[in-house]
Amino acid sequence: MRFFYAPHVEQPIHVLDAQEAKHLSRVLRARSGDQVVITDGVGGCFEGAIQSLDKRECTMAIEKASFVPEPQPRLMLVVAPTKSSDRWEWLLEKATEMGISDIQPVWTHRSERKSLKMERCQRVLISALKQSQRHWLPRLRDPMSWLEFLSSPLAVDFDGRYIAHCEPDADKVHLVNALVPGRDTWVAIGPEGDFVSDEIQAARALGAMPVTLGDARLRTETAGMAAVQMMQLAQLC
Amino acid sequence: MRFFYAPHVEQPIHVLDAQEAKHLSRVLRARSGDQVVITDGVGGCFEGAIQSLDKRECTMAIEKASFVPEPQPRLMLVVAPTKSSDRWEWLLEKATEMGISDIQPVWTHRSERKSLKMERCQRVLISALKQSQRHWLPRLRDPMSWLEFLSSPLAVDFDGRYIAHCEPDADKVHLVNALVPGRDTWVAIGPEGDFVSDEIQAARALGAMPVTLGDARLRTETAGMAAVQMMQLAQLC
Repeated sequence: MRFFYAPHVEQPIHVLDAQEAKHLSRVLRARSGDQVVITDGVGGCFEGAIQSLDKRECTMAIEKASFVPEPQPRLMLVVAPTKSSDRWEWLLEKATEMGISDIQPVWTHRSERKSLKMERCQRVLISALKQSQRHWLPRLRDPMSWLEFLSSPLAVDFDGRYIAHCEPDADKVHLVNALVPGRDTWVAIGPEGDFVSDEIQAARALGAMPVTLGDARLRTETAGMAAVQMMQLAQLC
Repeated sequence: MRFFYAPHVEQPIHVLDAQEAKHLSRVLRARSGDQVVITDGVGGCFEGAIQSLDKRECTMAIEKASFVPEPQPRLMLVVAPTKSSDRWEWLLEKATEMGISDIQPVWTHRSERKSLKMERCQRVLISALKQSQRHWLPRLRDPMSWLEFLSSPLAVDFDGRYIAHCEPDADKVHLVNALVPGRDTWVAIGPEGDFVSDEIQAARALGAMPVTLGDARLRTETAGMAAVQMMQLAQLC
């Protein structure tokens, strides 16, 4: 079964753009009659078959439309983009595969990176969505400063709030022991040089719980991926 | 604190090779007197200071030696190398960061890759060891076929044995619900096209439990990373 993404799916005939059509005919060697699924990334699931295909255009006949509800609870990764684009894009890919709902990039005091190519990030998310055959594209939020995020309505829209940092702190518990199943949750991961004390205090003032991801010294993108998986696994308990 | 790896640490004076010395002086801008830790990757922890440094050589005075016991239980990832070298090396890096003890590459019926550059793999492991400041370098086992592995003494040396596959199977439970804390454990992850039925049956015959990593359709390297993290988290329960 071939799996596609299109933000707007036309019924009963959907036309894929030239780039996708070319990829489909040249690389994937698809043929007329092949079964396909198209998702719009917001729960829409459109099943059908390829009607015609050449390297310029592909038309699909949609035979059945259904809706896949958004996975609950909502899980958001709040993270300072890594200096390396490769590592950042890798994190976007893996977080999508693991089923994150929202990604909020934040600029922190020690962030070495100060800008993101949002279109490119979006392409990475879409590619991972197709590969993992999910129906909900993670919402990539506009980057903002960490303090702006903390004072945004979004931050308090989630009941579970956690900040993973490396400063010595007697209060810190392991994230897996702190997570509450069924609760909309965000976990914040700092930059390569960690959050600074003021940033941690600001989060605590908002009721965010300081947590550890274990004894290991993890790269930012590894910590991000670990946090996403812990949020997912907590739902099984 | 600067963290190094050397398979053989000389006491009381250890001399770093030219490549490391150059990196240290040119890139890391280290100076005489800087505190250092050297690990030999098998639990040795050697603390000292840089005595002299130029771009050709670096000598370190070792002031204290200690031993860090190997983390228990032993956790092994048995995995079919991915077709993409990048994705494979990424998995080696992440598994090291997360603290895997052993990595056993296996060739399976549907493996698209048939060889590994072991020296290059070893370099990736060492780099991740240094970055994560661990004292135990994962043992990268010589690749062998899946069936060879199953009939090797190594396979039965671990009491916890699991095979993650995507075939429909009523018996499958989620890996996190199947793991037993404190038990030496391996989890096997198949190639991009999954294990074939015979390969799954052979594992079952050895007492390996078929497991799922969840509903998501994960890439091989994502599944590998997820399995490593689940093995680690199971030890906290």
